[in-house]
Amino acid sequence: MRATLDFLLHDWLRVESLTARARFADHSRETFAAVLDTCERIAREKFAPANRTADVEEPRFDGERVILPASSHAASRAYVESGMLAAAQDYALGGLQLPCVVEMAANSFFAQAGVGLGGHMLTTGNANLLMAHGTPAQQRVFAHQEFVGRFFGTMCLSEPQAGSSLSDIATRAEPDGAGADDDPLGPRYRLRGHKMWISNGDHELAENIVHLVLAKIPGPDGRLVPGVRGISLFIVPKWLVDEEGALTGERNDVALAGLNHKLGYRGIPNTLLNFGEGRYPVRGASGAIGYRVGAPGEGLKGMFHMMNEARIAVGLGAVMLGAAGYEASLDYARGRPQGRPIGPAGKDARQPQVPIIRHADVRRMLLAQKSYVEGGLALALYCARLVDEQHTGEPAAARDAARLLEMLTPIAKSWPSEWCLEANSLAIQVHGGYGYTRDYPVEQHWRDNRLNMIHEGTHGIQALDLLGRKVTMDGGAGLMALARAVNATIERALPDARLQPLASRLAQALQQLGAATKAAWATGVPEEALANAVPYLQAFGHVVIAWMWLDVALASDRDSDAGQGRHAACRFFFRHELPRIDAWLAVVRDRDDTCLTMQEEWF
Amino acid sequence: MRATLDFLLHDWLRVESLTARARFADHSRETFAAVLDTCERIAREKFAPANRTADVEEPRFDGERVILPASSHAASRAYVESGMLAAAQDYALGGLQLPCVVEMAANSFFAQAGVGLGGHMLTTGNANLLMAHGTPAQQRVFAHQEFVGRFFGTMCLSEPQAGSSLSDIATRAEPDGAGADDDPLGPRYRLRGHKMWISNGDHELAENIVHLVLAKIPGPDGRLVPGVRGISLFIVPKWLVDEEGALTGERNDVALAGLNHKLGYRGIPNTLLNFGEGRYPVRGASGAIGYRVGAPGEGLKGMFHMMNEARIAVGLGAVMLGAAGYEASLDYARGRPQGRPIGPAGKDARQPQVPIIRHADVRRMLLAQKSYVEGGLALALYCARLVDEQHTGEPAAARDAARLLEMLTPIAKSWPSEWCLEANSLAIQVHGGYGYTRDYPVEQHWRDNRLNMIHEGTHGIQALDLLGRKVTMDGGAGLMALARAVNATIERALPDARLQPLASRLAQALQQLGAATKAAWATGVPEEALANAVPYLQAFGHVVIAWMWLDVALASDRDSDAGQGRHAACRFFFRHELPRIDAWLAVVRDRDDTCLTMQEEWF
Repeated sequence: MRATLDFLLHDWLRVESLTARARFADHSRETFAAVLDTCERIAREKFAPANRTADVEEPRFDGERVILPASSHAASRAYVESGMLAAAQDYALGGLQLPCVVEMAANSFFAQAGVGLGGHMLTTGNANLLMAHGTPAQQRVFAHQEFVGRFFGTMCLSEPQAGSSLSDIATRAEPDGAGADDDPLGPRYRLRGHKMWISNGDHELAENIVHLVLAKIPGPDGRLVPGVRGISLFIVPKWLVDEEGALTGERNDVALAGLNHKLGYRGIPNTLLNFGEGRYPVRGASGAIGYRVGAPGEGLKGMFHMMNEARIAVGLGAVMLGAAGYEASLDYARGRPQGRPIGPAGKDARQPQVPIIRHADVRRMLLAQKSYVEGGLALALYCARLVDEQHTGEPAAARDAARLLEMLTPIAKSWPSEWCLEANSLAIQVHGGYGYTRDYPVEQHWRDNRLNMIHEGTHGIQALDLLGRKVTMDGGAGLMALARAVNATIERALPDARLQPLASRLAQALQQLGAATKAAWATGVPEEALANAVPYLQAFGHVVIAWMWLDVALASDRDSDAGQGRHAACRFFFRHELPRIDAWLAVVRDRDDTCLTMQEEWF
Repeated sequence: MRATLDFLLHDWLRVESLTARARFADHSRETFAAVLDTCERIAREKFAPANRTADVEEPRFDGERVILPASSHAASRAYVESGMLAAAQDYALGGLQLPCVVEMAANSFFAQAGVGLGGHMLTTGNANLLMAHGTPAQQRVFAHQEFVGRFFGTMCLSEPQAGSSLSDIATRAEPDGAGADDDPLGPRYRLRGHKMWISNGDHELAENIVHLVLAKIPGPDGRLVPGVRGISLFIVPKWLVDEEGALTGERNDVALAGLNHKLGYRGIPNTLLNFGEGRYPVRGASGAIGYRVGAPGEGLKGMFHMMNEARIAVGLGAVMLGAAGYEASLDYARGRPQGRPIGPAGKDARQPQVPIIRHADVRRMLLAQKSYVEGGLALALYCARLVDEQHTGEPAAARDAARLLEMLTPIAKSWPSEWCLEANSLAIQVHGGYGYTRDYPVEQHWRDNRLNMIHEGTHGIQALDLLGRKVTMDGGAGLMALARAVNATIERALPDARLQPLASRLAQALQQLGAATKAAWATGVPEEALANAVPYLQAFGHVVIAWMWLDVALASDRDSDAGQGRHAACRFFFRHELPRIDAWLAVVRDRDDTCLTMQEEWF
């Protein structure tokens, strides 16, 4: 993928132009390349060899400690030493002031080599949140320690009874007696509750674990406020620290209740945590000690601050698992002799067998993978580039970028989760029976990737976000911003005789999408509009990726093999994939009520 | 699924009418029910509890023996004791003379409860082949022992270098010296070669293993005949037997070279076998002893004899894995509270959460599963009913049935393999994070089902069979037979006001399919016609399942919950699924050359 990454970053997105901005002024194409080189090397040397081991020796709990393979520790250490945890931070914090788009590109190597190793994204995200919403002391004591990898981070949202429905969380946070408001680390509370699906919830990869925990502060009547307005955010460290971030030696009352045994993504221990159940009583009272971040009742706002980047990162992870499978199956298809060409040439069984890449159907499976993976990668990088624009662009451009990013985020998360999973299935299929064995890596990619449609907001949640919120917000301004961007690409493609038919088809698809959006909301009844939100999400995603491909094709030559390959993948996507939107949009447009009116007892 | 099975067998296929035929005259609805009851009970009591164990404790080889969990042995024994191995055989052989359609229905319980347990289908198939092509002695000594479960069977086709391309097998069979032609068990040969992907290739579930092995007899120049015409078929028992089928105590030279470690389907040991490598020298010469079945060079013909039933059975296995996931996720969706309704009613967070089955998108995921699983089940049973017609119908009807079966077999195998796998993915999705853990059964269903697109002819092979052979054979007679059958259903549906739109849509789909078939072959160049064979297979499959659903809907009332559910699933399939064919058929119709012209170096 390195050549594709370089092409997308430079020939397509022209990221070098970012170095004209003050924040990135010390950077150059060479410094970007150096970061990518380093990450590519570490991923190859430390992550790739640890990937299968992490799958086979899944995390286990000996009653005291969570045990991971030595190679997982080594991979994590190498990542920390690379400095990537602080890649986007200020030089003053020891950061590299990298643009988000380069940071994502660099991190993609780790996702491809071992997506379930380390979970460093969580640590970066946790620290980023504190940099945005924490006090200076919280930043110094927690975030800065995360950037250097002394502490690792988690995000504790879900509970066993509250996954997609965060408003139903039941973890309680009560002020920790006298002096609770004067703690230098922030207003001090005692937390009690259970948190489920906590990735990296317990391990010994770092000195300490900084849990960011959503909980509710009871009202004067002792009852929790229903709904999301009652949710606040807390820092709950596994080991208590002093004002300088040094461990005090006191274990906080956060106990591992169990490890989840997963289908894949096994490098990261996934946990059920008990907060304040009394396993580790601390400072003479019950409850886990936590420090509030931000105002009471504004916890979810803080969490959502970092959601966009986290969702793009999930999408990128899905893409790179797709890339891993694509490269493995391409390699296999080039080397595996089986069968002969269709037609007269293939009739002579005395002729040697040909590599399976010569068969049109194998090429179909490889082209589909290429179109999914490279299309998804383009979208992830495009979104990351929007993050940079939002942070460092001129005010008007920043505002536009933010709006477009809001629209694209559900797609950047959901589309690769679905289609790069399909790519992984095709990679298995290319391998035939061998792909179904653990002697080849593709079955693990497929298992690993199945997570991505579930975490960080399921497909269904992304679809409601898109059709229920994003396309209607600000009077449809987001959708219009997207349409402008897509039309700009179409305009550039129309004069190119060979791209003209694709440009026209995309224009039509965009029109279909707009019409379906209007039709879905024509009655103004959310129940009806949203009954087919997932088909809408799927169609929206295919239109966006078709747009990405057309834009990428515009930047691709027709002389080099790589350029020809990109044009072929673009054609493939327009001919074999984009027409699927008709079926998805038909039910949206008709406000099809088959699912809405289906009765429970009819199943 | 029992209620659905009973509905399909009796209300839809009216299988009781088969009892008017001589072969089934002693049967009745009651005797059919008794068989189903028994199988359902054994599956529940012996298979279901063993299913996860077989996955977790995958087969291992201690150097001498292949070790399976005790519960797998118990499940296999219970199956043998049920008499199902001989269910379709003559009473004289201890069989039940069951129609194929009832046999398949009864076996479906085992597939749902533990698809990878026992692999009895292989034993039945092996014995059936010998009943059709073996000598009386081969039938008595091998097949009859298989029907009572003393011996188990395998099918040894693939080799490490020859999977889809059987013409390239390199296993050699040479006459076994003096008296080789006079052996009472059949012309005796010595075999040498390697066989890959052999399910049940070694185990101790039975006293002996009867390998049916494809191999080539060298010509006078000592060289193997290239192509499939050189292939012959041999019985190679693990332990040699006398003329009465008693073990002689001599171990034949068939050695386990290794177990394949699979993604799923782990109950069945999958093996690489070495024939005649000298590990177990036998009777003073080298090579594994084998007895030829049928004439030299006609081995593949024999194998293909049983392919139709085997392929339907693979499809049925895929369906029942889908059924297992569907039932598990339906159960979960009914019991799991999460979130509130969309719209004003759901705004009040003080109201309790509702079961997720109330959400339209969850109903979508359940309806999709229902439409895939019950549609696939209908097709499998319809095909099995055609087998009965072929075997016991009047000559003209038998001929028509055989022709239709030829057409439908690639679909019966491939469609459930693809879409009931998708059903399994949706079952995971309904479970959310829980579905990604091994605490719930759905992740195993998904892993198990992934095999079905690969074995017994990959998707690509099925597609070539369909578009390259089946639709063109006898001047398109098969396609016309199918069109007649579909049109008959359409005619019956047109007068029903509520089914009329679906009937019209199906008529249009059939027309599209015919037109695409013609267009694909318009230039008469196989390379061009077949470049998009898989999209053709997919579209063909969706048309066939739409037909099944319309026909099933015609037999469904609108008063009962179950009847309403079937009508809803039928509508779902027509509105959400059938429109997908437009995209698939477009590339077929246009003879799209994107895949054909893609160059290897462009990837």
